Formats: sequence, structure tokens, C-alpha cells
Amino acid sequence: MSTRDRQIRLGAFLMTPGHHVAAWRYPDTEASEVLSLKFYKKLALTAERGKFDMLFLADGLAVSENFPEAIAQTVTVRPEPLTLLSALSAVTEHVGLAATVSTTYNEPFHVARKFASLDYLSEGRAAWNVVTSANSAEALNFNKDEHLLHSLRYERAEEFLNVVTGLWDSWEDDAFVFDKAGATFGDRSKLHTLNHKGKWFSVRGPLNVARPIQGHPVVIQAGSSEPGKELAARTADVIFTAWQTIEEAQLFYSNVKGRLAKYGRSPDDLKIMPGIFPIIGRTEAEAYEKKALLEELIPQEAGISLLSNLISFDLSPYPVDGRLPNLPELEQINGGKSRFTLLKDLAEREGLTIRKLYQRIAGARGHREILGTPVQIADQLEEWFTQGAADGFNIMPPYLPGGLEDFVDLVVPELQRRGLFRTEYTGKTLRENLGLKRPAHPHSLKQTVSLSAK
Amino acid sequence: MSTRDRQIRLGAFLMTPGHHVAAWRYPDTEASEVLSLKFYKKLALTAERGKFDMLFLADGLAVSENFPEAIAQTVTVRPEPLTLLSALSAVTEHVGLAATVSTTYNEPFHVARKFASLDYLSEGRAAWNVVTSANSAEALNFNKDEHLLHSLRYERAEEFLNVVTGLWDSWEDDAFVFDKAGATFGDRSKLHTLNHKGKWFSVRGPLNVARPIQGHPVVIQAGSSEPGKELAARTADVIFTAWQTIEEAQLFYSNVKGRLAKYGRSPDDLKIMPGIFPIIGRTEAEAYEKKALLEELIPQEAGISLLSNLISFDLSPYPVDGRLPNLPELEQINGGKSRFTLLKDLAEREGLTIRKLYQRIAGARGHREILGTPVQIADQLEEWFTQGAADGFNIMPPYLPGGLEDFVDLVVPELQRRGLFRTEYTGKTLRENLGLKRPAHPHSLKQTVSLSAK
Repeated sequence: MSTRDRQIRLGAFLMTPGHHVAAWRYPDTEASEVLSLKFYKKLALTAERGKFDMLFLADGLAVSENFPEAIAQTVTVRPEPLTLLSALSAVTEHVGLAATVSTTYNEPFHVARKFASLDYLSEGRAAWNVVTSANSAEALNFNKDEHLLHSLRYERAEEFLNVVTGLWDSWEDDAFVFDKAGATFGDRSKLHTLNHKGKWFSVRGPLNVARPIQGHPVVIQAGSSEPGKELAARTADVIFTAWQTIEEAQLFYSNVKGRLAKYGRSPDDLKIMPGIFPIIGRTEAEAYEKKALLEELIPQEAGISLLSNLISFDLSPYPVDGRLPNLPELEQINGGKSRFTLLKDLAEREGLTIRKLYQRIAGARGHREILGTPVQIADQLEEWFTQGAADGFNIMPPYLPGGLEDFVDLVVPELQRRGLFRTEYTGKTLRENLGLKRPAHPHSLKQTVSLSAK
Repeated sequence: MSTRDRQIRLGAFLMTPGHHVAAWRYPDTEASEVLSLKFYKKLALTAERGKFDMLFLADGLAVSENFPEAIAQTVTVRPEPLTLLSALSAVTEHVGLAATVSTTYNEPFHVARKFASLDYLSEGRAAWNVVTSANSAEALNFNKDEHLLHSLRYERAEEFLNVVTGLWDSWEDDAFVFDKAGATFGDRSKLHTLNHKGKWFSVRGPLNVARPIQGHPVVIQAGSSEPGKELAARTADVIFTAWQTIEEAQLFYSNVKGRLAKYGRSPDDLKIMPGIFPIIGRTEAEAYEKKALLEELIPQEAGISLLSNLISFDLSPYPVDGRLPNLPELEQINGGKSRFTLLKDLAEREGLTIRKLYQRIAGARGHREILGTPVQIADQLEEWFTQGAADGFNIMPPYLPGGLEDFVDLVVPELQRRGLFRTEYTGKTLRENLGLKRPAHPHSLKQTVSLSAK
């Protein structure tokens, strides 16, 4: 197998103790370990053993109290992702470290600085999953009465990203010379003060961290709405997206890849990695048994609460074994718009009751669920990968550590046998492993840019 | 030696690659390693070998460009402290991890969450050094035109601290039961939503991390101004302070300890740990040689810039070998007020020129410099410790790693021989090592409080 062959990219997208809402009740799940470093270290080393490109942590900035009954039945506490991934940077060597951080409730200077620091401490393995937050409970923890409107969140996110990448470019790559005899620590001519003044932010800079090892840490985006796609085409390295069928995924894939040229980017500069929720059995029957057990373990209030939060609409007043009520129009939804549409369409298409719908999404939360033997799962990943629907996948283990261990021990070897996935890490940085270019410093590019500008 | 004997508390207060402004030019300093985890890991393990209570990281949120000539001559880049300490939590076992985080440019929800997370990942070793920031360049990185006034910074800091400790108490210590069979992850009756609405912050809570292992991570404060002392007496576990003479230090010590009773606290509940800048030689002559070499290595612009920033007054227009010009009145200073007074008094008392003053403070920056053999240094620490001037010290190595290694290998054994310092860690958490109580949850205290209230 040549290393030039196109390879599947894999993220271990972890929500602890598993993506399934009943994961913590699953027999082997170490539910009491959700705040322990030992637990996460085991997961990180498992992902690294499986040659995953990255460990990818979800995040949320609130305990939702919209559904009081559900609080006792769900996992409400987890470590903050940047804190946790920083700790894991010291005990891993290869796996990328991707943290979700919201642009709605943070300051760009802090975010630029923390990811630049993590990029140094991990020797080039940092990634930022940029989200705008879709949960109104979060606003109340940050001096706001209500959640910022969807369009304003994206406007803010775009400016936020510009400021962060500008701060990462405060110093040129070779700015620091450490010349003791000449009394020169840094070359001041290679310092570029940002002096940003925009609608949302006023940030002078420069950053007090050198240019990151990767130039810019890898930028991941998850929004699949129209402004989300455009922002990603211009600025993202990876898109994390949710599709149920290969046709939808192909349409999205070609749509987004088609937007890259106008920003001077090639299709390879942006990796599209849908979420995949795998239920793996050594036999198909075993996989179905696991699925049935997970569904059986869902506490009813937790299921209704999860679904209501995902569609930003309170379903608790409606009969759980009845159909979905009439939902608002998309324009009135101020949460995750693409998730709302996806779940509404799914319920209509298959005529699902509230209970059936929450059982369906209690694991994958709108991402694609694939179930079966390692060969069956590899077949489906191969199909999407080779048929223009994905460059790789963010694997969402239903429960931990077992769900990740099964993928690493059973599915990864099958992908490797097919020549679709690496058997050793070939790059040193996350960018290198993902097959992404290291962004040149804009100053060193100036001449090229002005020559090629129209 | 009984473990009940009063013991010196030691913090390794690190500014890399050393506190002296010329540290990076010192022969053995690993100046090019200031962003590398390997370097910090070595320092952390050295501190742990020396049985230090904690590793304590300074911070700043800007590269000052007030003195352009000095930029090339000073260390302008370092990792963000929480990111770095999180990484070190995974490779150390005993040493406390204290990060400086400003209340002026952060949100309490993030700060509460990150320190709670670090407290879990480190198994009870997190500490927060609360600062209000004294550098006007920082304001420009956070959407502000100028630095918040000193009195408003303290008002904001006090409310910030109340919110953070309130969020840490969101859940009672035994709120999480992980009862798989009973479908109960957490006990909702042990959840306390903060619902804070104040002048500076509106934060609903609850926190999405369980109550920290230490109850509250250790709270360190550095302000020695009047509002700083009062805030510390009410809320701090440790004070980090700067005094040149034992008389001043004794006065401060008894003043602050005297304020504790009115908040229902005992003198032991607050440890006073002045900064100490030690220049250690195997002989006194060797120590003087080190000092002379460090002074010789100070680039002039870097020296003037450091001094100007410390007193919040631009000295660059004045002759470097002349006396200090007339400085503004204390009321007009919007930086660190106690540092301004200390340096102004020092220059007047000893009739120092600008150059002599920056040479004097280029290492200790206003903290006490002690120079000599290990025995001489231990003598001075012992005197302050036994004569009511300090409960311990924050050791500020002039250059790294050598300055810390010398302290650990030469001074620590001398303190241990005198029975003044531990030979093994006796506690598991930082609080236990520092001899601080674990704060009870306010809910479990309710009855006691109402009985004892006046």
C-alpha cells in the first residue's frame, strides 16, 4: 500500500461515558469515572493504539434544567475539554487533541492563546472545534438573558475566527532566535501587531505565544446550515457533519467541496468527516442485542428531554406514544437548525412516535447509526468513503470504554486489511496525519498573494 | 520531628526561563525551551523532588509594546498557565498546581469550571491565584480602551470570587450516586442552582462539574493594598505578598491575621507566603558572582521597560544614570499600588539612580532578594518564619532550571535538617499539605450557621 493512497481519517468523538443517553447505565460502563484522568488516559491510549487521527471532545456550558425530572437520569458533569486535553497531551504522543470551544461565550485572545499553548505542549496536535452554541441555558451562565440569534452567532463566529487566526500569526515562524550573546530573544521585524477593530471585537494583540507548531491548529466546524457551510468553505480544515443517508451526504460533500475554489482552496484542503454511531457485535445478532439493551435502559424523562433539547421544542406535554405535534417553522428555531430539520424529516418519513424517535436518536443524536459485524461496519464506511460522501468519520462510541475498544480491536484491523486506513502514524503533527497543508504566514505570502490577486 | 510541628510552606513561583529579566541570557538557561512541555515537566518533577507544596505560575495577557526597543530583549512568549498545569497534572503526583487567572478579563463560569476540572484531573491539587491585572496593555486585547479603575477591579474581583465559589458549591459532595439499577446518576435534591444576579455578573448555574475534590480549589491572592487585604482576609487561603524588610512583613502579617476573626476564621486558615528571590552559591563569593553576572546581562532597554511597567510610569525619557524624576501621587496610579509605593520608597531611601534601581529589581521585581550560601539562606527563611513574618515562601528562581535545582538540592535539605520542612508529603491534596481545612458545603452547614449567627 502506498502512503499516497487516499486514506480514511478517523476521529474518536467522545462524549463520556458514551454517546448513548443510557450509556452510563450500560453494564460495563465506568460511570463513576467521568471526572477521573485515569479513565480518559485509558481512552486516549486506546484511540492512539487504533491510530486514530484525533480525540475529539464535545462540550456544553450548562446543565439544562428545562426538564427537572431528567437531571437525575443523565450525566450532567464532565471535565472542561481544554483542561482535559492538555492533561492528555502529556501522556500521548501521536493522537490529535480536538476541543470544542464556543465563539459565543469566549474571548478570542484567550482562545487563540490556549490553543497555541496546547499546540506547543502537544508538539503540533491541537485542534479547535468551533461552535456557536445552540443551548439557551448557556446564555444564562454568561450574563445574557437569552441566546444570541442564529445569524448574529455566525456573524460573531466569523469575526472571532479572523481574530484568532490573526493572533496566531502575530509572530512569523522564525521570529525567535534566542541569541544570548547578541542580546536578541526575538526579531522585532517579525512581529505583526493585529490592531483588529470590528463590530464584535477590538483586539490589539500581539499574542504572547509564538506562532503555533502547525501554523494554525486544525480548525473544525460542525454547522451544516447555509452560513455554516460558507464559513467552513472559507476557513475550516475539517467539517464534522450529520447525515442519515449516503445521498444526502454526497450532496453535502459536493456542495461544500464546490465552494472551496472561490477562496483559492483545493478540495483536499477541507476534510469532511460525518459522525458515525457504531453498534458493533461479533455477530449481527449480538449487535442487535446491544442496541435493544441500550434502548431498554433509556429513562423516559431523559429521552424526552434529550429530544426536546435537540429540536429546541418542549415535547414533555405531549403523549409519549403519540406522533410529534406540529412543530414551528424553521425560521422560528434559534438552536441547531440543521438538526431540527433532520429530526423533523425523519419522524415524518417513518411516522415515528415521540418514544420511537427518542429511542432512534438517543445514541447518535441525529448522526448516522450503523449496526452489525466489523465487516458490515467496514463495508458501510468504505462505501461512503469511496462514493464521494466522506473523507473520514467521527466515531461516536455508544458507551465507554467498551464501544471504543470494540472499534479499535474489531473494525480498525478490517479497514487496515482493506488498505483504507493507516497501520502506523506517518505524520508528526495532526495536520500531517490528516493530510492538510501547514498554512504559510501571511507576511511571507504577501508577494504571491498580490501577484495572484484579481 | 512531629508532623504537628509548624512547618514552612513552599511554593515554586516560576516565571520562565527565570524571574530575572536577564535569565534567558544566563549561561545554563534553556531559553529556547520556554514553550516545551519537556522543560516544564523537568521543573515540576524537580519541585516535587524538593517536596514543594505547589508549583505557582505567573501570568500576563499581553505583550507590552510601550517600549519597542525592549521587545527584542525580553521573553515575550510563554504557555497559558491553566493549559500548562493541566498537562503537568498528568505527570506529577503530589505537587500543587497554582495558576494565575485574572478576574478582570474572564467569566466566572469558565474559571469555576476549569479549576474544578483541574482539581479532579489532579486529584485535589488545584489552586487559583486571583489577580485583577495591573497592565493597561491587557485591556486592549479584550475590547476595552483602557484599564478598569483599581477600585472597580476589586469590586468586580469580589463579586467574581463569590460567583466562582457559589458555582463550586452547585452540587453537594455526595450528590452523585451512579445507581445504574435505580436509574439515578445524581440526586437532584443535592443540586443548588446559584441564580446569581449582581452588579457585574448574572450567572444562573449550576456548574457542570461536581464539587471539587478539595471542596474549593485553594484560593491565592496577591494584592497587598487595603481592599486587597480585606478581600484576602475574607476569602483567601494563601496570600502571596512582597516585602523587603522583616519589620514590614511582620506588620503586614499581624495586620492580616488580625482581620480574620471578624469573618469567623482562625489565623491558621490563611497562609502568608511572601515572595523570595534567592541567589544561591556554594560560597558567598559564588553567590555574589552570580548576581554580578545577572546584572551585567541586563539589556538597558529591557531594564528601563521592566521598571517603568512595574511603577506604571514611563522612565525612558530620563537619564538612566540620574535619579528618579518626581513621580505622580499614589492616587493617580492605576496599576499595582503597593508595588509603586515599595519601589518609590526604596529609591528614595537608598538614593538609587534609574539604572541602579532596575538592577535591584530586575530579578525580584520588588520581592525580597536573599543571597548567600544554603545555610545563610535557610537562616533568613527561618528568621522570617519563626518571627511572625511568614508562614512560608514563594521561591522565585532567578534562572531555570538551575535556580530551582540549587534550591531543591542545597537549601531544602538544610531546612529539613532543622526540622522546618517536610521530608515526605503527608497530605494527599494541596489543602492537606498546606494545612488548610476543606470548606464544608454551605448547605450542610446551614443549621450551624444560623445557630452561630449574631
